Amino acid sequence: MSGETDLIERLRALATDPAARGLMDDAAVLAPPAGAALVLTHDMLVEGVHYLPADPPADVAWKLVATNLSDLAAKGARPLGVLLGLTLPDDAGWRDGFVAGLAAALARFDVPLLGGDTVSGRGATVLGLTALGAAPAGGAPDRRGAAAGDALWVTGSIGDAGAGLAIARGAAGPSALLDRYRRPQPRLDAGRRLAPLVSAMMDVSDGLLIDAGRLAAASGVAIAIDLDAMPLSAALSAFAGDGREARLRAATAGDDYELLFTASTAAAPAIRAALADLGLPVARIGAAAAGGGLKVTDADGPVPLPARLGYLHDG
Amino acid sequence: MSGETDLIERLRALATDPAARGLMDDAAVLAPPAGAALVLTHDMLVEGVHYLPADPPADVAWKLVATNLSDLAAKGARPLGVLLGLTLPDDAGWRDGFVAGLAAALARFDVPLLGGDTVSGRGATVLGLTALGAAPAGGAPDRRGAAAGDALWVTGSIGDAGAGLAIARGAAGPSALLDRYRRPQPRLDAGRRLAPLVSAMMDVSDGLLIDAGRLAAASGVAIAIDLDAMPLSAALSAFAGDGREARLRAATAGDDYELLFTASTAAAPAIRAALADLGLPVARIGAAAAGGGLKVTDADGPVPLPARLGYLHDG
Repeated sequence: MSGETDLIERLRALATDPAARGLMDDAAVLAPPAGAALVLTHDMLVEGVHYLPADPPADVAWKLVATNLSDLAAKGARPLGVLLGLTLPDDAGWRDGFVAGLAAALARFDVPLLGGDTVSGRGATVLGLTALGAAPAGGAPDRRGAAAGDALWVTGSIGDAGAGLAIARGAAGPSALLDRYRRPQPRLDAGRRLAPLVSAMMDVSDGLLIDAGRLAAASGVAIAIDLDAMPLSAALSAFAGDGREARLRAATAGDDYELLFTASTAAAPAIRAALADLGLPVARIGAAAAGGGLKVTDADGPVPLPARLGYLHDG
Repeated sequence: MSGETDLIERLRALATDPAARGLMDDAAVLAPPAGAALVLTHDMLVEGVHYLPADPPADVAWKLVATNLSDLAAKGARPLGVLLGLTLPDDAGWRDGFVAGLAAALARFDVPLLGGDTVSGRGATVLGLTALGAAPAGGAPDRRGAAAGDALWVTGSIGDAGAGLAIARGAAGPSALLDRYRRPQPRLDAGRRLAPLVSAMMDVSDGLLIDAGRLAAASGVAIAIDLDAMPLSAALSAFAGDGREARLRAATAGDDYELLFTASTAAAPAIRAALADLGLPVARIGAAAAGGGLKVTDADGPVPLPARLGYLHDG
């Protein structure tokens, strides 16, 4: 049995949902929830761009699933299924690990594998995933909805994954931070609860500052961020410190996969209440105002924006 | 402006459907037709595997769209949109051609670009596309539905694209055959009309014989094909002849993107009537019977199956 055939057999074993038609048909066929709008995203991971060659393949597969589900989370969507587009290395051990990580992520987030395509890698490992979700009844939040006067919020903590990347590259540091880099957690439950309360929402994938700038540009507002209000985990503060430089590094590191959103100031109690039992912190870190662009301040005053506001995978 | 940013800007200009959200949001959001099941497929093209490095980039883009829409056609589905996952060469001329071909295919098949991802190619050109469609009201045909006694049919003509590939590789031959290789035409209208009439349907992508064998295996029936009944175009007969060897080459060449389907013998008049005004021939080429496997005959008797029944991209 060739490596490719073996891979397809093992993916088939994961594709148990009837909509997948056993990966034997030209296409998947599924009945969507009645009345729901569809949310669709396709993001890729490329070796050397989005992950390190030495990253465990199970973590790479997890990340491929998690980063796409994070886009669904940002639209308040419930995942309906994924399709894969894979060129994998001709390395049985790597493929074993990849399939194991894929199985773990699909099970963890309860999302069916519906279909896709695999091609021998010809030397390149290019991993694509399409995620399909059902939008919430009130509609999927947009990046374009922030209004002057809205508050800016973020879930969880920022910068952990950036420190995790440094640890993956050889720095000594706690596994909790490495896990944040290698096993991101899409905020699916939080996204669904927040969707009816927000004016705009997106996930933080490339860095808090660059992504906040994108939200500002999409909405046609200015955004001001209080760097001191940006939530750092205890592990990150211990690892990297808590001063302006450390906070700027965290705010520009990327791979957080937290939710960044705006909402009217009146919604603050509802936001805190919505997330109260998830064990996921939420922090008010700034505000939208008339105008455009991004301003950052801390207790010492205005913070000059760094030249690089985030991690740009694509130039 | 970097090449990647320029590319995204040009894709954005194609993504005019409101569901695409200007390619500015985390995901596309669209309202599907009420009550329709969804049909989803993701197929890739990899340079050197699915197309030749010298193939014009506009044709490669066309093929990426057309091969995925062909999967929708085989399920009788109406295209709702596509998402791209692209690693493109760092070659402005190639990218220009690719975007032009993409625009032409999307316009020709009236399908919106909804979203996707682009990554600098790092030397590899891996092209993925997810196509989303709406299943026909009576349900999407499966490969598993053929029953003993059903007739086997195929649309159009077989083997043209295989000859076109030989021409692309340097053989002298008519541009009509080269076009069949470079600009496949998904049989979307035919698929929608045939869906209520067929017991099983798929597209012919890897070769008539290998794909008929897959249909037989999926349905748990034997399939017998009359090689003489397999439709050849006049251009192919003139280019490659019409004898057993030429017909076997045509039946194993792949890239036809015709529809292969079974139906009860009573459905024959309805099938011919359904396609009568499309200008697309349809031919009855065999039958399903109890048992399993594939048998081929012609006027001279049983035809030994060649070792290679089709083009296996993936091993």
